[in-house]
Amino acid sequence: MINKLEHTECQSALLPIRDALDVIHGKWKLLVYISIREGNSRFREIERSIPDISSKVLAKELKELEQHQLIKRTVYAETPALVEYTVTEYSKGLGELLQALRNWGLNHRKKIMGKKPVPAVN
Amino acid sequence: MINKLEHTECQSALLPIRDALDVIHGKWKLLVYISIREGNSRFREIERSIPDISSKVLAKELKELEQHQLIKRTVYAETPALVEYTVTEYSKGLGELLQALRNWGLNHRKKIMGKKPVPAVN
Repeated sequence: MINKLEHTECQSALLPIRDALDVIHGKWKLLVYISIREGNSRFREIERSIPDISSKVLAKELKELEQHQLIKRTVYAETPALVEYTVTEYSKGLGELLQALRNWGLNHRKKIMGKKPVPAVN
Repeated sequence: MINKLEHTECQSALLPIRDALDVIHGKWKLLVYISIREGNSRFREIERSIPDISSKVLAKELKELEQHQLIKRTVYAETPALVEYTVTEYSKGLGELLQALRNWGLNHRKKIMGKKPVPAVN
Protein backbone atom coordinates (compact mmCIF):
# COMPACT_ATOMS: atom_id res chain seq x y z
CA MET A 1 0.00 0.00 0.00
CA ILE A 2 1.37 3.36 -1.01
CA ASN A 3 1.36 6.02 1.69
CA LYS A 4 -1.29 8.53 0.83
CA LEU A 5 -0.40 12.16 0.93
CA GLU A 6 -2.46 14.21 3.31
CA HIS A 7 -5.10 16.27 1.55
CA THR A 8 -3.22 19.58 1.84
CA GLU A 9 0.06 18.05 0.69
CA CYS A 10 -1.75 16.50 -2.23
CA GLN A 11 -3.18 19.89 -3.15
CA SER A 12 0.21 21.57 -3.18
CA ALA A 13 1.63 18.78 -5.32
CA LEU A 14 -1.21 19.23 -7.79
CA LEU A 15 -1.21 23.02 -7.90
CA PRO A 16 1.88 23.69 -10.05
CA ILE A 17 0.76 21.00 -12.48
CA ARG A 18 -2.70 22.54 -12.61
CA ASP A 19 -1.09 25.93 -13.30
CA ALA A 20 0.94 24.47 -16.15
CA LEU A 21 -2.08 22.68 -17.61
CA ASP A 22 -4.17 25.84 -17.36
CA VAL A 23 -1.71 27.43 -19.77
CA ILE A 24 -0.98 24.61 -22.18
CA HIS A 25 -4.22 22.66 -22.06
CA GLY A 26 -6.19 21.92 -25.17
CA LYS A 27 -5.20 20.16 -28.31
CA TRP A 28 -3.74 23.13 -30.12
CA LYS A 29 -1.92 25.58 -27.91
CA LEU A 30 1.49 23.92 -27.83
CA LEU A 31 1.30 22.99 -31.49
CA VAL A 32 0.76 26.66 -32.35
CA TYR A 33 3.61 27.66 -30.07
CA ILE A 34 5.95 25.08 -31.62
CA SER A 35 5.07 26.16 -35.14
CA ILE A 36 6.08 29.73 -34.29
CA ARG A 37 9.19 28.54 -32.50
CA GLU A 38 10.15 26.70 -35.66
CA GLY A 39 10.07 29.86 -37.68
CA ASN A 40 6.51 30.37 -38.92
CA SER A 41 5.66 33.98 -38.17
CA ARG A 42 2.62 34.89 -40.30
CA PHE A 43 -0.93 33.85 -39.51
CA ARG A 44 -1.40 31.93 -42.78
CA GLU A 45 1.99 30.21 -42.45
CA ILE A 46 1.15 29.02 -38.96
CA GLU A 47 -2.28 27.89 -40.11
CA ARG A 48 -0.83 25.89 -43.01
CA SER A 49 1.72 24.18 -40.76
CA ILE A 50 -0.94 22.69 -38.45
CA PRO A 51 -3.33 20.29 -40.18
CA ASP A 52 -7.02 20.69 -39.32
CA ILE A 53 -6.74 23.86 -37.24
CA SER A 54 -9.44 26.44 -38.05
CA SER A 55 -8.74 30.16 -38.39
CA LYS A 56 -11.04 30.87 -35.46
CA VAL A 57 -9.25 28.46 -33.13
CA LEU A 58 -5.84 29.69 -34.27
CA ALA A 59 -6.81 33.31 -33.56
CA LYS A 60 -7.97 32.34 -30.06
CA GLU A 61 -4.84 30.34 -29.30
CA LEU A 62 -2.56 33.14 -30.52
CA LYS A 63 -4.33 35.59 -28.22
CA GLU A 64 -3.97 33.30 -25.21
CA LEU A 65 -0.31 32.54 -25.94
CA GLU A 66 0.29 36.29 -26.06
CA GLN A 67 -1.53 36.84 -22.75
CA HIS A 68 0.69 34.23 -21.13
CA GLN A 69 3.78 35.98 -22.54
CA LEU A 70 4.83 32.96 -24.56
CA ILE A 71 4.64 34.76 -27.91
CA LYS A 72 4.92 38.36 -29.05
CA ARG A 73 2.77 39.99 -31.73
CA THR A 74 4.41 42.75 -33.74
CA VAL A 75 2.50 44.95 -36.17
CA TYR A 76 4.56 46.70 -38.85
CA ALA A 77 3.11 49.89 -40.30
CA GLU A 78 2.88 48.82 -43.89
CA THR A 79 -0.01 48.67 -46.30
CA PRO A 80 -1.47 46.14 -45.84
CA ALA A 81 -0.33 45.90 -42.19
CA LEU A 82 2.21 43.16 -41.60
CA VAL A 83 1.67 41.14 -38.43
CA GLU A 84 4.41 38.85 -37.16
CA TYR A 85 4.41 36.38 -34.31
CA THR A 86 7.62 35.36 -32.57
CA VAL A 87 8.35 33.42 -29.40
CA THR A 88 9.45 35.34 -26.31
CA GLU A 89 12.71 34.84 -24.49
CA TYR A 90 10.70 33.79 -21.44
CA SER A 91 8.95 31.00 -23.34
CA LYS A 92 12.25 29.25 -24.01
CA GLY A 93 11.91 27.81 -20.51
CA LEU A 94 9.29 25.52 -22.07
CA GLY A 95 12.12 23.54 -23.71
CA GLU A 96 12.35 20.88 -20.99
CA LEU A 97 8.59 20.37 -21.05
CA LEU A 98 8.44 20.11 -24.85
CA GLN A 99 11.27 17.58 -24.83
CA ALA A 100 9.50 15.52 -22.16
CA LEU A 101 6.24 15.61 -24.17
CA ARG A 102 8.07 14.60 -27.34
CA ASN A 103 9.90 11.71 -25.65
CA TRP A 104 6.75 10.43 -24.04
CA GLY A 105 4.69 10.83 -27.22
CA LEU A 106 7.22 8.84 -29.24
CA ASN A 107 7.25 6.09 -26.67
CA HIS A 108 3.48 6.03 -26.27
CA ARG A 109 2.87 5.80 -30.03
CA LYS A 110 5.16 2.78 -30.09
CA LYS A 111 3.52 1.12 -27.11
CA ILE A 112 -0.19 1.81 -27.53
CA MET A 113 -0.78 2.65 -31.12
CA GLY A 114 1.51 -0.06 -32.47
CA LYS A 115 2.80 2.37 -35.06
CA LYS A 116 6.37 2.96 -36.04
CA PRO A 117 7.70 5.91 -34.07
CA VAL A 118 8.48 9.03 -36.02
CA PRO A 119 12.13 10.11 -35.68
CA ALA A 120 12.55 13.10 -33.41
CA VAL A 121 13.68 16.32 -35.06
CA ASN A 122 15.95 18.35 -32.81
CA MET B 1 15.71 35.15 -39.20
CA ILE B 2 15.29 31.63 -37.91
CA ASN B 3 15.60 28.84 -40.47
CA LYS B 4 12.18 27.44 -41.06
CA LEU B 5 11.76 23.73 -41.04
CA GLU B 6 10.38 22.27 -44.21
CA HIS B 7 6.72 21.38 -43.96
CA THR B 8 7.33 17.62 -43.65
CA GLU B 9 10.06 18.07 -41.05
CA CYS B 10 7.79 20.36 -39.12
CA GLN B 11 5.07 17.72 -39.19
CA SER B 12 7.32 15.02 -37.80
CA ALA B 13 8.49 17.35 -35.04
CA LEU B 14 4.87 18.06 -34.12
CA LEU B 15 3.56 14.52 -34.35
CA PRO B 16 4.96 13.01 -31.12
CA ILE B 17 3.87 16.11 -29.20
CA ARG B 18 0.41 15.84 -30.74
CA ASP B 19 0.31 12.17 -29.69
CA ALA B 20 1.24 13.08 -26.13
CA LEU B 21 -1.32 15.89 -26.01
CA ASP B 22 -4.02 13.61 -27.40
CA VAL B 23 -3.57 11.50 -24.30
CA ILE B 24 -3.06 14.08 -21.60
CA HIS B 25 -5.06 17.01 -22.96
CA GLY B 26 -7.83 18.56 -20.99
CA LYS B 27 -7.79 20.16 -17.61
CA TRP B 28 -8.35 17.02 -15.58
CA LYS B 29 -6.67 13.93 -16.98
CA LEU B 30 -3.24 14.33 -15.42
CA LEU B 31 -4.71 15.56 -12.14
CA VAL B 32 -6.76 12.36 -11.90
CA TYR B 33 -3.73 10.28 -12.78
CA ILE B 34 -1.60 12.03 -10.15
CA SER B 35 -4.23 11.59 -7.48
CA ILE B 36 -4.22 7.83 -8.10
CA ARG B 37 -0.44 7.77 -8.26
CA GLU B 38 -0.39 9.42 -4.85
CA GLY B 39 -2.43 6.62 -3.34
CA ASN B 40 -6.09 7.44 -3.83
CA SER B 41 -7.69 4.28 -5.17
CA ARG B 42 -11.48 4.61 -4.67
CA PHE B 43 -13.73 6.75 -6.83
CA ARG B 44 -14.89 8.95 -3.95
CA GLU B 45 -11.35 9.39 -2.62
CA ILE B 46 -10.13 10.53 -6.01
CA GLU B 47 -13.11 12.83 -6.39
CA ARG B 48 -12.49 14.44 -2.99
CA SER B 49 -8.81 15.00 -3.76
CA ILE B 50 -9.51 17.12 -6.87
CA PRO B 51 -11.44 20.32 -6.16
CA ASP B 52 -14.29 21.11 -8.56
CA ILE B 53 -14.22 17.89 -10.57
CA SER B 54 -17.68 16.45 -11.25
CA SER B 55 -18.51 12.74 -10.94
CA LYS B 56 -19.38 12.62 -14.61
CA VAL B 57 -16.05 14.10 -15.73
CA LEU B 58 -14.13 11.88 -13.32
CA ALA B 59 -15.84 8.75 -14.67
CA LYS B 60 -14.95 9.78 -18.23
CA GLU B 61 -11.33 10.54 -17.38
CA LEU B 62 -10.91 7.23 -15.54
CA LYS B 63 -12.19 5.37 -18.57
CA GLU B 64 -9.82 7.15 -20.92
CA LEU B 65 -6.83 6.69 -18.61
CA GLU B 66 -7.63 2.99 -18.54
CA GLN B 67 -7.88 2.83 -22.34
CA HIS B 68 -4.44 4.41 -22.60
CA GLN B 69 -3.08 1.83 -20.15
CA LEU B 70 -2.07 4.46 -17.62
CA ILE B 71 -4.30 3.11 -14.86
CA LYS B 72 -5.77 -0.28 -14.02
CA ARG B 73 -9.29 -0.89 -12.71
CA THR B 74 -9.73 -3.88 -10.43
CA VAL B 75 -13.13 -5.10 -9.26
CA TYR B 76 -13.17 -7.24 -6.11
CA ALA B 77 -16.09 -9.63 -5.73
CA GLU B 78 -17.49 -8.27 -2.51
CA THR B 79 -20.91 -6.96 -1.61
CA PRO B 80 -21.09 -4.14 -2.44
CA ALA B 81 -18.46 -4.56 -5.18
CA LEU B 82 -15.15 -2.90 -4.38
CA VAL B 83 -13.52 -1.07 -7.27
CA GLU B 84 -9.93 0.06 -7.02
CA TYR B 85 -7.84 2.15 -9.36
CA THR B 86 -4.06 1.89 -9.43
CA VAL B 87 -1.42 3.22 -11.78
CA THR B 88 0.21 0.81 -14.22
CA GLU B 89 3.90 0.05 -14.37
CA TYR B 90 3.92 1.45 -17.91
CA SER B 91 2.55 4.81 -16.74
CA LYS B 92 5.58 5.39 -14.54
CA GLY B 93 7.33 6.58 -17.70
CA LEU B 94 5.24 9.74 -17.25
CA GLY B 95 7.53 10.78 -14.38
CA GLU B 96 9.82 12.97 -16.47
CA LEU B 97 6.84 14.71 -18.05
CA LEU B 98 5.12 15.33 -14.69
CA GLN B 99 8.33 16.76 -13.25
CA ALA B 100 8.73 19.05 -16.26
CA LEU B 101 5.12 20.23 -15.90
CA ARG B 102 5.58 20.84 -12.20
CA ASN B 103 8.82 22.80 -12.66
CA TRP B 104 7.33 24.92 -15.38
CA GLY B 105 4.09 25.49 -13.47
CA LEU B 106 5.98 26.68 -10.39
CA ASN B 107 8.05 29.04 -12.46
CA HIS B 108 5.11 30.35 -14.48
CA ARG B 109 3.03 31.06 -11.38
CA LYS B 110 5.91 33.14 -10.06
CA LYS B 111 6.45 34.99 -13.33
CA ILE B 112 2.96 35.63 -14.68
CA MET B 113 0.57 35.33 -11.81
CA GLY B 114 2.79 37.23 -9.37
CA LYS B 115 1.83 34.77 -6.66
CA LYS B 116 4.14 33.11 -4.22
CA PRO B 117 5.12 29.72 -5.59
CA VAL B 118 3.83 26.72 -3.72
CA PRO B 119 6.67 24.48 -2.47
CA ALA B 120 7.04 21.32 -4.53
CA VAL B 121 6.24 18.08 -2.75
CA ASN B 122 8.45 15.24 -3.96
